[in-house]
Amino acid sequence: MNKSPLVQCLGISAPAPSLQDNTADLDRLKRAVAAVLHDGGERRPLSVPCARVGPVAAAFRSAGFRGAVLVNMLPAGIEIVDFLPAMPPVLPAMALDLGTTHLEARLLDLRDGSTMAAGHTENRQIQYGADILSRIHFATRSRDQIERDGEDEGLLLLQKAVIASINDLAGELAAKAGRQPAEIRALSVSGNTTMVHLFLGLNPYHICREPYIPLVNAPDPCHAVELGLAIFPQAPVWMLPGIGSYFGGDLISGILVSGLDQAEATGMLIDVGTNAEVVLGNRDWLIACAGAAGPALEGGVARMGMRAAPGAIEHVAIDAATWRLDYQTIDNAPAAGICGSGMIDLVAALYLAGIIDIRGKFRVAPVPESTGHKHFLQQRLLREEGTTSFVVAPAEESADGRPVVLSQIDLDAVIRSKAAMYAILSTLTSQVGVEFEELERIYVAGAFGKHIDPRQAIILGMLPDLPLSTYVPIGNSSLRGAERILLSEECRRRSMEIGRKITYIELNVNQEFMIRFSGSRFIPHTDPKLFPSVPILKDDSGAGGA
Amino acid sequence: MNKSPLVQCLGISAPAPSLQDNTADLDRLKRAVAAVLHDGGERRPLSVPCARVGPVAAAFRSAGFRGAVLVNMLPAGIEIVDFLPAMPPVLPAMALDLGTTHLEARLLDLRDGSTMAAGHTENRQIQYGADILSRIHFATRSRDQIERDGEDEGLLLLQKAVIASINDLAGELAAKAGRQPAEIRALSVSGNTTMVHLFLGLNPYHICREPYIPLVNAPDPCHAVELGLAIFPQAPVWMLPGIGSYFGGDLISGILVSGLDQAEATGMLIDVGTNAEVVLGNRDWLIACAGAAGPALEGGVARMGMRAAPGAIEHVAIDAATWRLDYQTIDNAPAAGICGSGMIDLVAALYLAGIIDIRGKFRVAPVPESTGHKHFLQQRLLREEGTTSFVVAPAEESADGRPVVLSQIDLDAVIRSKAAMYAILSTLTSQVGVEFEELERIYVAGAFGKHIDPRQAIILGMLPDLPLSTYVPIGNSSLRGAERILLSEECRRRSMEIGRKITYIELNVNQEFMIRFSGSRFIPHTDPKLFPSVPILKDDSGAGGA
Repeated sequence: MNKSPLVQCLGISAPAPSLQDNTADLDRLKRAVAAVLHDGGERRPLSVPCARVGPVAAAFRSAGFRGAVLVNMLPAGIEIVDFLPAMPPVLPAMALDLGTTHLEARLLDLRDGSTMAAGHTENRQIQYGADILSRIHFATRSRDQIERDGEDEGLLLLQKAVIASINDLAGELAAKAGRQPAEIRALSVSGNTTMVHLFLGLNPYHICREPYIPLVNAPDPCHAVELGLAIFPQAPVWMLPGIGSYFGGDLISGILVSGLDQAEATGMLIDVGTNAEVVLGNRDWLIACAGAAGPALEGGVARMGMRAAPGAIEHVAIDAATWRLDYQTIDNAPAAGICGSGMIDLVAALYLAGIIDIRGKFRVAPVPESTGHKHFLQQRLLREEGTTSFVVAPAEESADGRPVVLSQIDLDAVIRSKAAMYAILSTLTSQVGVEFEELERIYVAGAFGKHIDPRQAIILGMLPDLPLSTYVPIGNSSLRGAERILLSEECRRRSMEIGRKITYIELNVNQEFMIRFSGSRFIPHTDPKLFPSVPILKDDSGAGGA
Repeated sequence: MNKSPLVQCLGISAPAPSLQDNTADLDRLKRAVAAVLHDGGERRPLSVPCARVGPVAAAFRSAGFRGAVLVNMLPAGIEIVDFLPAMPPVLPAMALDLGTTHLEARLLDLRDGSTMAAGHTENRQIQYGADILSRIHFATRSRDQIERDGEDEGLLLLQKAVIASINDLAGELAAKAGRQPAEIRALSVSGNTTMVHLFLGLNPYHICREPYIPLVNAPDPCHAVELGLAIFPQAPVWMLPGIGSYFGGDLISGILVSGLDQAEATGMLIDVGTNAEVVLGNRDWLIACAGAAGPALEGGVARMGMRAAPGAIEHVAIDAATWRLDYQTIDNAPAAGICGSGMIDLVAALYLAGIIDIRGKFRVAPVPESTGHKHFLQQRLLREEGTTSFVVAPAEESADGRPVVLSQIDLDAVIRSKAAMYAILSTLTSQVGVEFEELERIYVAGAFGKHIDPRQAIILGMLPDLPLSTYVPIGNSSLRGAERILLSEECRRRSMEIGRKITYIELNVNQEFMIRFSGSRFIPHTDPKLFPSVPILKDDSGAGGA
């Protein structure tokens, strides 16, 4: 795979000019480069960007017409961008997962694909809006608002903020690797459609308005200098193409990494962030959709919900014999909230313990003495101001001295999210007449895939009731896809091909989805036959087993 | 020929986006453009420059997804650079002859090739040096010199000066045509190799140093904005490729215009400026060389020499019966000097009148009474400070009150120039074993071709003794070539092809040339059989006829 990086360094040697061989320096260099490339079967046209003609020709001459030439391997042609007197010891390039809240990056050596450094930073756009929608609104503020605030255009501020974040990260990674940022010779970017728009300074106004049309899905590569990036000015910036407003390059990365587009057997890819994005398909066809299924599982909606960060309750277990509740926080820090995987564990466990009924409501009836230890669990239910909450971590164990609780409102949000997720998955499979049982693999991307316990998600009725081995976490596939793009021409080609091949279904207006969503609001489902492995609790019983 | 301009405007219409057709705006535009281009058999890759993605997509949307798209038809791919709500009334592009002293330009409407405006201006680089060599020296001044003078780098100053001149000219032509400079959608540039280097800000140091290697012969097209040109920022700037330090894109223009590269019969192209550049060939092969043959025919060397400008004596005739000398100045202005064609007329006439001998020396022996009127001609010979001069225009007829004279020193320079020219032509034909008599056409470019009387040049032994109909003036072929480049893909392809196909002979080190040069220093030649139509004057006779 590492044979065809986006930027390559070719050793070349040309005869010195003479009266008998008076080809111009740059044409001589091109001739030598073309000879090397032609030997490798490469026939794309060769060019030198205007700004590099002088420096490249001068370096070629001063090196005695031999050395190492740096070429950008772009789809439409090959650009000669630098000349070095000898092969460089490393060829750094940065892969970037351009997230709405965080940027995660890896510095690779393009010669062998090895990692030189890794790091992450906050997306500085956060100061202008926490989520995608608020960023879009900030980017498209009216002229009046801008004049009143006395600020630059929102779009420009957002672009500057993300470029500054990337430049920080590039500087940090370069320093870690003992290199200069100007030695970073390529950048690949995998992000959602809005983030890519803001990165390019493109107006995202229509992204969040029906019929949800991005300005561009597959931007052509450009040079770092055009975006104000403080890396090598002619470093190619390659953005993974998106498919729609709610299906960005980060998902194409997931498809690349899972290999869904190459597999003979039909598989599925699930990525849950603010939205749930799902792809179904194989090497012959791909179908995708996205829907709001995640919010309850991240910060923002559930009162105690939070991102997977130190102090987040990421796992919850209730012992079926003792009814003891145990939880685990990230980094074992005092409990500060509950992240998505913790929320799923918690609700599934409370369902099995009979604390939550099949409609997703807390049972507030008094518990008979005979249930023994379960009494203690029941005691964690609080009734305040006409609503019920469940204490997950008492005040004395929490980070801020207030108990971490799951309220009925939070619980309703979790149920909506899990129902949406199952409805999305079942709508998508139904569209192409595929049964869940036919799926060999379901890849689960991101933090969700890394932390979630598929068994608990199945109990909730969020994921289909399949053998647990079906579910394969693939980590930060957005970043991993960006890395592959840097290293492999085949992956770059596939990323474009996937963009062209995939069929995107808009769920916002899909009737079937709405019907399936309603049917999915019970635990595990209104049709329990869909979840044979999940015990069905009788409405008047508090007992159950896993 | 006008079917394939460098920039084209295509009418397109795309369906409005919907939930069922959610392609992004720019991808939608590309799809529509690709459909139109594919219909025309066009398969080059399509891209949108980074800086144009936002504006083009916004214009496409606000026009209701239909209108006119502007595309740059570059060899490696097609760039979408603008979108207009309707077909524009004109599509202006500028063709530029980038001369060392003057720029000449024409504004064409790319839709039909018609001329919208024409103009010329001085090359502002003149303030830093009158000729190519002094510019190269200024461009490559030492750091010490620059620090002492407290100026920017010479190269930068020269580039700024020529860009400013071009911007002036673009502004002037646009104003003449009633358009804005930003409406100029393309620029083609035809100039000598040094001028193209300075235009691009490229170091010309090695151009004038053996083995005379330019930094680049065939620069890739770039965008106007990259060079600071004040026309449409993404206007493609297409430079005609050169072949060597002394054979630039202006000559490729000449070949294009003469059609030498397409003719079955072998022909020749002669362009005389500061250098004489000559091409010989046909559709199968082309061979070229350049040599210093022109200086005496322009300003700079001959004391009274000047460019073809108002007041320049451009034609001289001596009546064979009365020995009266008549001259004609450009614009009938008072005589200020002698331009190239006047110089050739004058020396040829003085030779036929017996005032100059076959060695190119003034005859200073007393003229016998029997020659009658010729006495008056003889009287124009002045002897001052041990050297002889011939008064062409007496003081009372001149612009500055001093007579316009031809000195022996000037005369020697003319003889050297004419000898060099004939030696260049004969060396070149000899290299490929072609006889002058085999040439069907000899195209003579530029002011030299326009003003020169081939008969007088034959008498001098400067041009071969062929039927006068062989000689075809082709005017400012540098500008005309630049025009064709704008209008025809075929011409763009040919220009690149010519650059690759042509064989360039370096005369500076050519032994045969030196021998032929010596043999050509007589009038018409040491071997008079080469000029059967030219009367041979006996060394002791002052008589002759035309």
